[in-house]
Amino acid sequence: MDMLLGELVALEQCALDRWIAFDPEGYLDLQAADVTYFDPFTEKRVDGLDALRARMAPMKSMKPPFTDPRYDMIDPKVQGGGEIAVLTFNLVNYGRLPDAPESVLARWNATEVYHRVGERWQIVHSHWSFVQPQGQSA
Amino acid sequence: MDMLLGELVALEQCALDRWIAFDPEGYLDLQAADVTYFDPFTEKRVDGLDALRARMAPMKSMKPPFTDPRYDMIDPKVQGGGEIAVLTFNLVNYGRLPDAPESVLARWNATEVYHRVGERWQIVHSHWSFVQPQGQSA
Repeated sequence: MDMLLGELVALEQCALDRWIAFDPEGYLDLQAADVTYFDPFTEKRVDGLDALRARMAPMKSMKPPFTDPRYDMIDPKVQGGGEIAVLTFNLVNYGRLPDAPESVLARWNATEVYHRVGERWQIVHSHWSFVQPQGQSA
Repeated sequence: MDMLLGELVALEQCALDRWIAFDPEGYLDLQAADVTYFDPFTEKRVDGLDALRARMAPMKSMKPPFTDPRYDMIDPKVQGGGEIAVLTFNLVNYGRLPDAPESVLARWNATEVYHRVGERWQIVHSHWSFVQPQGQSA
């Protein structure tokens, strides 16, 4: 794996490991003050870390409806790499619902735009969307 | 409007004006050989212009099920701008279905990552996803 790809995947996985346990602080630490953000539940782009922090706040008091969360990051790829690098991947979330075997909870398309400030990479744009289940595609 | 934002919005609108008439060539002309791509119907990231061209090919022989297509590009914003610039916006598509008044056909989140090669901007990554209808959001 190319060094920059390895570095950005490591940052992303640190944030993801906390996110799947409903702790958004890993991402919030990684995001820049002027971050922009889309996910399937935003009606409009979210602009700025303060707005994103407010949006994520309720998550911290939620109890996940599943146990044993894990994910597969599929085929991460990096483009660019001077001051701005774009990390893209597919992600599959798994977990166990009560009295059930492990199942797929969600499948994602993910775009993370990183900006290098000195020695540190920060996320300046995130776009998360659902992969449509097979059979529903056009 | 800032000059770079104006330039990228103009490029994007040229491609969109053709796209809404089911002509993908505007985008295909704008995309780089190593473009990466997500939309709601991709089961996995599409890598490279050849793969994207193959994916878009059937569109050219489709007849749109609506007339008078138009769109609103909402609050376009640019980040970065040296060699790589990230254009984000929301988009609402409108059209007239047979014997019906104009209606909203789709609402989108859009991320377009542009790479400057000499004097020319090319799209190196696109991520299009549906905004969830109100009432379905988490």
